[in-house]
Amino acid sequence: MTQGITVLGIDPGSRVTGWGVVREISGVASLVDCGTVRTADADIAKRLGIIFRGVSDVITTLRPDVVAVENVFTAKNAASALKLGQARGAAIAACALHGLDVHSYEPTKVKQAIVGTGRADKQQVAFMVATILGVKKPSWAVDASDALGVALCHLTLRRYEKLAAR
Amino acid sequence: MTQGITVLGIDPGSRVTGWGVVREISGVASLVDCGTVRTADADIAKRLGIIFRGVSDVITTLRPDVVAVENVFTAKNAASALKLGQARGAAIAACALHGLDVHSYEPTKVKQAIVGTGRADKQQVAFMVATILGVKKPSWAVDASDALGVALCHLTLRRYEKLAAR
Repeated sequence: MTQGITVLGIDPGSRVTGWGVVREISGVASLVDCGTVRTADADIAKRLGIIFRGVSDVITTLRPDVVAVENVFTAKNAASALKLGQARGAAIAACALHGLDVHSYEPTKVKQAIVGTGRADKQQVAFMVATILGVKKPSWAVDASDALGVALCHLTLRRYEKLAAR
Repeated sequence: MTQGITVLGIDPGSRVTGWGVVREISGVASLVDCGTVRTADADIAKRLGIIFRGVSDVITTLRPDVVAVENVFTAKNAASALKLGQARGAAIAACALHGLDVHSYEPTKVKQAIVGTGRADKQQVAFMVATILGVKKPSWAVDASDALGVALCHLTLRRYEKLAAR
């Protein structure tokens, strides 16, 4: 019997944090659930609390085995990098508190794993994410789709690693 | 009777996060406790978990009324701003989860409130922090001293605001 693995992908943002949970059994990935944590116009501390709680709730409900987060090292300026970092920090702290391993992937790595080229645009990635998961007309938000992309990237790279180790 | 206020100051960092708790009663501030949360060589997720837990423990033990955090918008580059942001995010999320208000202060604001000039150097701030708290030979770490500085800055600005409102 092949043991399955459940991956939580997260695309953190100070206003919208996307999340997507994917389950792979015998090499076939399927969608468990996905959504967004929206922080609206709350002040920064409340926003980070909302992100932490939102991610924590997803983990408690869907019990992923591992987490994959997009690693963004480029930002317009230090201020926006700091904001993005804060959102990431709140989300990753929630995962760490649940004892989950967190893997980071560069955006080009995600594109390469999903579309086959690191230069793919966002729409191509979104299309391939839906195709891989067998969802014909996805109604999910862009941020949720990005999160599913990171989760699928983790599964793909894990598969390659397993093959390479044989 | 004058009601006292207890302030938790935090100086977040991805390797060392300083914290300091100060209590003000009838306009006189005194040290409650201070220290550091060190994340050593753990991976980034574990580090953020350690910061979150460390700050959370301080809050549970010392029960501050409010939190003050230094607001750093300058960083060498986007990568270091992101790292610093992550540490801040984990620390602030812990405060938000305890329902505490978090106030951010620019470093120049802290220096101005403590030393009287926004151009003061770190040693001057450290000296004044110890003097204000009546501690003659402080043995605390630099990061803990910085955290106490932010807490004292909050108390000072709060006092000015109260005076202005009269």
